[in-house]
Amino acid sequence: MQYMKIPRWKRAEFEEIEYEPKSIRELLKEMKNISELIVDLAYSAILFNNTDIAEEVKYLEVRMDKLNYEIRISAMLASRTVEDAEKMAGILQIAQASDTISNAAGDIVKLLSYKITHPILPHLIKESDEIIRKITMDRASSAAGKTISELKIASKTGVRILAIRRNKRWIYGPKGNVRLAKGDTLVCIGPDEGIRELTKLLKGDIGVLE
Amino acid sequence: MQYMKIPRWKRAEFEEIEYEPKSIRELLKEMKNISELIVDLAYSAILFNNTDIAEEVKYLEVRMDKLNYEIRISAMLASRTVEDAEKMAGILQIAQASDTISNAAGDIVKLLSYKITHPILPHLIKESDEIIRKITMDRASSAAGKTISELKIASKTGVRILAIRRNKRWIYGPKGNVRLAKGDTLVCIGPDEGIRELTKLLKGDIGVLE
Repeated sequence: MQYMKIPRWKRAEFEEIEYEPKSIRELLKEMKNISELIVDLAYSAILFNNTDIAEEVKYLEVRMDKLNYEIRISAMLASRTVEDAEKMAGILQIAQASDTISNAAGDIVKLLSYKITHPILPHLIKESDEIIRKITMDRASSAAGKTISELKIASKTGVRILAIRRNKRWIYGPKGNVRLAKGDTLVCIGPDEGIRELTKLLKGDIGVLE
Repeated sequence: MQYMKIPRWKRAEFEEIEYEPKSIRELLKEMKNISELIVDLAYSAILFNNTDIAEEVKYLEVRMDKLNYEIRISAMLASRTVEDAEKMAGILQIAQASDTISNAAGDIVKLLSYKITHPILPHLIKESDEIIRKITMDRASSAAGKTISELKIASKTGVRILAIRRNKRWIYGPKGNVRLAKGDTLVCIGPDEGIRELTKLLKGDIGVLE
């Protein structure tokens, strides 16, 4: 059970999180972002037998638990009247559904640690299916300090960046004006070949994308 | 409760489904596709107060229930040995998680019928967020019989087709070679302006995309 040995997601349950969103709006926005991302990641992990991506799912699942707890506290503190409380109940229903989605995604990747490989799974991958990979940017990469647009990642490789993990903060669905930094971990989706090109760039093996 | 009056998703619970996938593989593939699509649709419905998209979520949720039932039956019939059964248990875990995801998406859109509009919700929409719309192709549209690539939908409008509903069958994440037919309902994501251009084409108001 390779990814069970990496205890980062487990540590995260007890650690303080560096970036604390302040408002209910911020909390709910991140919960929405996580639930849209985590389902794709979970299926990708199980279909491609990718423990790296499964680890991110676990991490995001724990983060979602925390957010759901925090939003409940914030909602209760913010409710002064019956009207407030009724509106907050709606927000908490969305939050709970988001948490349920992330737990279900966690259930999917749990199968990886059972080492149950079913002959049906690889057949679920469409020929056209793009792969999802996690790439950490090397110190030597010339991409550091450049924006996603400047690097022409989409047009040169066909790869889309789903999220960037920077220390303990996540940037979901980064836009072209986001500047990459050393040590960033990019969760990317795209064709096999494009992912390989981007990996070369982020590892410092090539200077620009061709 | 406008969308509650439209009983199509409710009817679907009792109706026979025209397209019946045959194998466990087909069943699971569709469950994967639905769970990847339904989360985006649910959030879009609640954020943009869109009962049209909420209706599709309801429809897909009912479809998912059916698929989860069918896959259980198929898995039991296919299990002759303990090894078979153990592998099938893994498949059913993925299926159950997919069903849970679609139910959670259903819980999100249920809020629309409660008419609870929270001032926080519109703030969750990023300026860059694309809208999701359902467009049904008119008989008069010149797009009928043409492929998605031929119509240059992506390059001319920036719109991506997430799914096509054709009678009771769904095509999830259609590729460029899929030919559009009269009466197709397209679930699309993209910039406001691009969606409007595509709507004109599909309603027969313009002959080609400019």
